[in-house]
Amino acid sequence: MNVTVQGRTRHYRTVTFNSEQNAVVLIEQRLLPHQFEIVEMRDFRETARAITEMIVRGAGAIGATAAYGLAQGALAFRGRGMAQFQRHLRSVFETLKAARPTAVDPVNSMLQVRAAMQPGKTVEEQQALALAAAESFASEDVRHCEDIGRHGAKLIRNGAKVLTHCNAGWLAFVDVGSATAPLYAAQEQGRRFHVYCDETRPRSQGATLTAWELAQQKIPHQVVADNAAGHLMQRGQVDLVIVGSDRTLGRTGEVANKIGTYTKAVLAHRHGIPFYVAIPFSTIDWKMKSGFDIPIEQRHESEVLGAWGTVQSPSSSIKSSVEDKKSKVQSLKHGERAYVRVANPGSTALNPGFDVTPPDLITGIITPAGIFKPRELWKHRRRLGFAG
Amino acid sequence: MNVTVQGRTRHYRTVTFNSEQNAVVLIEQRLLPHQFEIVEMRDFRETARAITEMIVRGAGAIGATAAYGLAQGALAFRGRGMAQFQRHLRSVFETLKAARPTAVDPVNSMLQVRAAMQPGKTVEEQQALALAAAESFASEDVRHCEDIGRHGAKLIRNGAKVLTHCNAGWLAFVDVGSATAPLYAAQEQGRRFHVYCDETRPRSQGATLTAWELAQQKIPHQVVADNAAGHLMQRGQVDLVIVGSDRTLGRTGEVANKIGTYTKAVLAHRHGIPFYVAIPFSTIDWKMKSGFDIPIEQRHESEVLGAWGTVQSPSSSIKSSVEDKKSKVQSLKHGERAYVRVANPGSTALNPGFDVTPPDLITGIITPAGIFKPRELWKHRRRLGFAG
Repeated sequence: MNVTVQGRTRHYRTVTFNSEQNAVVLIEQRLLPHQFEIVEMRDFRETARAITEMIVRGAGAIGATAAYGLAQGALAFRGRGMAQFQRHLRSVFETLKAARPTAVDPVNSMLQVRAAMQPGKTVEEQQALALAAAESFASEDVRHCEDIGRHGAKLIRNGAKVLTHCNAGWLAFVDVGSATAPLYAAQEQGRRFHVYCDETRPRSQGATLTAWELAQQKIPHQVVADNAAGHLMQRGQVDLVIVGSDRTLGRTGEVANKIGTYTKAVLAHRHGIPFYVAIPFSTIDWKMKSGFDIPIEQRHESEVLGAWGTVQSPSSSIKSSVEDKKSKVQSLKHGERAYVRVANPGSTALNPGFDVTPPDLITGIITPAGIFKPRELWKHRRRLGFAG
Repeated sequence: MNVTVQGRTRHYRTVTFNSEQNAVVLIEQRLLPHQFEIVEMRDFRETARAITEMIVRGAGAIGATAAYGLAQGALAFRGRGMAQFQRHLRSVFETLKAARPTAVDPVNSMLQVRAAMQPGKTVEEQQALALAAAESFASEDVRHCEDIGRHGAKLIRNGAKVLTHCNAGWLAFVDVGSATAPLYAAQEQGRRFHVYCDETRPRSQGATLTAWELAQQKIPHQVVADNAAGHLMQRGQVDLVIVGSDRTLGRTGEVANKIGTYTKAVLAHRHGIPFYVAIPFSTIDWKMKSGFDIPIEQRHESEVLGAWGTVQSPSSSIKSSVEDKKSKVQSLKHGERAYVRVANPGSTALNPGFDVTPPDLITGIITPAGIFKPRELWKHRRRLGFAG
């Protein structure tokens, strides 16, 4: 999507490849939204570290990064003979796989690249095939998101007020995004609408990433506390909710997504507000039989007990004479990135990272193949890419 | 309640009076939970400023502060004659009233003090009556909270898991608190239970004040993101919800409270979990006929766009080599109080401060006079202090 840096607007993908340098090119997502910077990973080990350290995150984006990383590793091969090349490839594959052990996307995307590297070809031919397969993986990710946008855009009427949760935007994919795709498509069709971004504590991806994306795309939006959604719905200020998903069960229509998604679904249901989940095919789990079996990651309590941001000069409305004496806020440098402890120092936290929304609360699942009732995913499994 | 400072535990009220110094003695609540400090307001103007600047906050606490402030002003009178004394008193009253123009508690408590200062008495006698009335107001606040605790403690079974929202604790009153009163009473009765404190964005009163109170009282608790409540309820980890209220409509049973309260009520209702609201009499509005008429304060967007806390050394799990180069976190002083901007710098926020929960979602209202169904407040209005 478009990004404006120092007054100049141009199109970016989250992941691309620089053939001349044999480098994987990424947006340094950890600096967002306060800084936009492009970084080049010069070998596959750097690329793996970029996945581990969350320079790049999001299912589609890390899938493409791993695919490019495998091609990068293949292209860097300077040894002799096919056996050595294959050994090298296995090592590259394992390094990239180990970069995020719980994620399924890097493995799937690399298997796709491996499958394209036909036996019998020379090392040089296989290197070229690897890069072509990685490029094709990335392009397919973009195309699927565009398809989600095409189907989902119909849901966004002129003047609509849309609530989103977390970030399933283009930063989580190669481009366009899943939950954001209908927004971008509707904007392209000339419709005007307003987006409320749940800040999405504890990691605040809504306040940081989604708000940044919408600002760059010039879509009117406001950040709201996660606590505000119920009140806004009660006062008729939300027409539609669109979220993404980390895992959707193809057999039951249950949706695992960022903690708080279930709450928004319960609220939307009470108020008769349509609640949609936008997903690429790769998110669908065709095996699991119950949402209760989805492992809910317990994340580090520091996320709940504090917040990351950039230090600001204290606002005069909050500052006071007593505070001036007590604290040394003035001595902190404006704009520095810092973690502040918010919670009582003696207290601990519980931090489940995801929750599961049952199908009865979901109006529809927006996929690249169309919009489906959550319980009808299984019936349409062939169209939805189920190969089992 | 008890506070342990440097290993020494003693009992504190949020507001007391030092007769020797003619000073109103307050806990400096803006430093909590990171620092516990007692401050003395040496004249009524300082006391008024303490209310304005939120050194003291919460309905009961600012009511008692204003009552003491009026007595303090009366006691400071050094002029001649009753007429001059009355003029002085009016000026003290107006100064304290103007300290928080939208609050009703300071006015009500000062009217109570004024009513106790009988005409015909000398200035000295009236000064003594004023202080006695202020002390009596404060003691009644404590007694009412204790009564709430006595009734509410029955709801907390041994081993219960209780969810709270925001802070309606002893810091918001003179002592004991409303939503916390049943917890403290149940603890005194020897029951063991666990409390989940909603962090309560955007101002995080749950993570800061409620967690601090519970830690001081040695009640097992964990802070959770507001987003986590739905998931916890879905997994059977919440047995009971208790919250406070800023305004409860005596005619309809609707409850206005901190933003996010309505959301928790909707979730509790879906899961069949009892949802209670604990209130003193002064919170009941006997006039208003519809919750839709309750003005919802729109607060400053900076609350949503960032967070206040103390600067921490970055945790090694979040820190990374790239971040080290990019930011200067290390140069910030550990423990300093600071505001960090979390959200995208180009984005704005919407920040409604309160929401309204309808009576059908409320299991009961815990009052000093007993527990009532929200729709039955009006029937029991005489017992609930309705004087109309």
